[in-house]
Amino acid sequence: MADAVLRGGVDLGGTKIQAVIADPDHNVLGQARRPTPTEGGPSDVVDAIAEALAEAAEQAGVELSALSGIGVGAPGAIDESKGTLARAGNLPDWQDPYPLAEKLAKKTGAKVVRLGNDVQVATDAEFTLGAAREFDSLLGVFWGTGVGGGIVLDGKPWLGRGAAGEIGHIPVRHHGLKCPCGRHGCMEAYAGRRAMETRARKAVDDDGEKTILFEIMEEKGRDRLTSGIWWRAIERGDELAERLIDEAVEAIGTAVASACNVLDPEAVIIGGGLGVRFGEPYARRIEDAMMPHLFHDAHPPQIRVAELGDLGGALGAALLVA
Amino acid sequence: MADAVLRGGVDLGGTKIQAVIADPDHNVLGQARRPTPTEGGPSDVVDAIAEALAEAAEQAGVELSALSGIGVGAPGAIDESKGTLARAGNLPDWQDPYPLAEKLAKKTGAKVVRLGNDVQVATDAEFTLGAAREFDSLLGVFWGTGVGGGIVLDGKPWLGRGAAGEIGHIPVRHHGLKCPCGRHGCMEAYAGRRAMETRARKAVDDDGEKTILFEIMEEKGRDRLTSGIWWRAIERGDELAERLIDEAVEAIGTAVASACNVLDPEAVIIGGGLGVRFGEPYARRIEDAMMPHLFHDAHPPQIRVAELGDLGGALGAALLVA
Repeated sequence: MADAVLRGGVDLGGTKIQAVIADPDHNVLGQARRPTPTEGGPSDVVDAIAEALAEAAEQAGVELSALSGIGVGAPGAIDESKGTLARAGNLPDWQDPYPLAEKLAKKTGAKVVRLGNDVQVATDAEFTLGAAREFDSLLGVFWGTGVGGGIVLDGKPWLGRGAAGEIGHIPVRHHGLKCPCGRHGCMEAYAGRRAMETRARKAVDDDGEKTILFEIMEEKGRDRLTSGIWWRAIERGDELAERLIDEAVEAIGTAVASACNVLDPEAVIIGGGLGVRFGEPYARRIEDAMMPHLFHDAHPPQIRVAELGDLGGALGAALLVA
Repeated sequence: MADAVLRGGVDLGGTKIQAVIADPDHNVLGQARRPTPTEGGPSDVVDAIAEALAEAAEQAGVELSALSGIGVGAPGAIDESKGTLARAGNLPDWQDPYPLAEKLAKKTGAKVVRLGNDVQVATDAEFTLGAAREFDSLLGVFWGTGVGGGIVLDGKPWLGRGAAGEIGHIPVRHHGLKCPCGRHGCMEAYAGRRAMETRARKAVDDDGEKTILFEIMEEKGRDRLTSGIWWRAIERGDELAERLIDEAVEAIGTAVASACNVLDPEAVIIGGGLGVRFGEPYARRIEDAMMPHLFHDAHPPQIRVAELGDLGGALGAALLVA
């Protein structure tokens, strides 16, 4: 196989950078992961992306400069035509538009670098390669640090004016909890990993509740409550973790029902760190939580867990240059 | 102008049948209205539609059989290819699929009869001829007996699997009021005219609240609280009417923000009996109620009142055969 038909894909997240090298059949020939720099600025992030890509390329036995192109899925405001990324709140010092495509092309020698929204490329990956292959319309639900949504209608991404799919900020409670976004009652205020961690800390600090969540965190040498830590705590019957996850499921079900009442898609794909970790049984629980609010309940959408797991974002990014 | 280029349009609602005759520039050359039969069955409704069309055609100076086609906007489950309407809950004895297109063609001698969803054709009318002419994407909000929604994305109607745009059933309150649809906390449970009337009666009967709503109804010789009666009561400072309308506005704002967080459309058009009657000041109030829940609040959609008023549904139906 000629090197020139291999593509690079990068999922640029707030905590990690995941890179893959994909062949024309979307097989992953190499992959590497780096923590996202928490200090410095955009150029440090570009360096880390290039390092992750170089490691993945080495695994795949290809020179970076020989790739047919590199796609990057990123959070924030993307100008696809200019190749810039702005207002990436989870990335260090990244408010103004930064020419990420140009800088990464220079650093890697890649001929083509294209940018896409991280949630949308992960949705496109599930649509093209994953759990939604057989459908023409879908809502992607990415349950992780926040809760993002991606939309495919009639086989094509629907981006609105650039801000479609913000299902995490659908209000689910009147005068509800404060969301990390500053609004009240958003679904993400109940279901986002970051918001759930804040709630757990508050329950311990302010209300003296007992939980093993933070013990597990220390055992694992982590500084935040990862999806795996929530899972472990539930397995061990931790009541606080159970209650917060129950409320998360309820909030996701309500907001996804709202979105389905608007879009009436064929399928809902549940991905993201928590979505994939909690998997099929929780996809069924989310479905149960949707049903009381789904108008077209005689004909609900198919609810499925994302198939591409952790690599979906990077594989979707590689689709940008397919 | 040759008669053959004139079209008929019918808005088939639960309380009234509105017919228009439109020329190629969408000017209304004739119009007529009939109450929707509350007894009998589909064939009585077909008779009433044909009568309304005949009266409108006489005004326009055209024979019904000379029209190039007739479009009908109807509530319920439409099979466009078969020309059938089923499960029209607001129409008498209309559960099974009924060949409305064929029967109406036979009755009127029309060459072509096409059916469309009532809310969607009204949305298409505002998109093509009305308040949303300049936009490519919009959410139509029809605030009347219930609250329906119509969607245009990238210049084309989005119907999902036939049940998209059900914004009236977006949940806005956790364990909220019972909606006429049987679910709890739907927007329509607070904002639909029928639900508001039930709430007003309950406030009087169960809680002994005072209101002039029912006095105005009797003065006007009506048997239900029409949009005009609500308007009159608000003008006269009726506190119950004000409170219920305030809650309706809040619920509509919350649900429309939810829909906009999903779709990110360029515009929101507020129509329907209450929407048009309450007009511009209440469109601004709905906008204010949306803002706290709108994620993309630096770039909100344009909020406008429907321009085609009472005839929008019938004009949109005539577009089905344009």
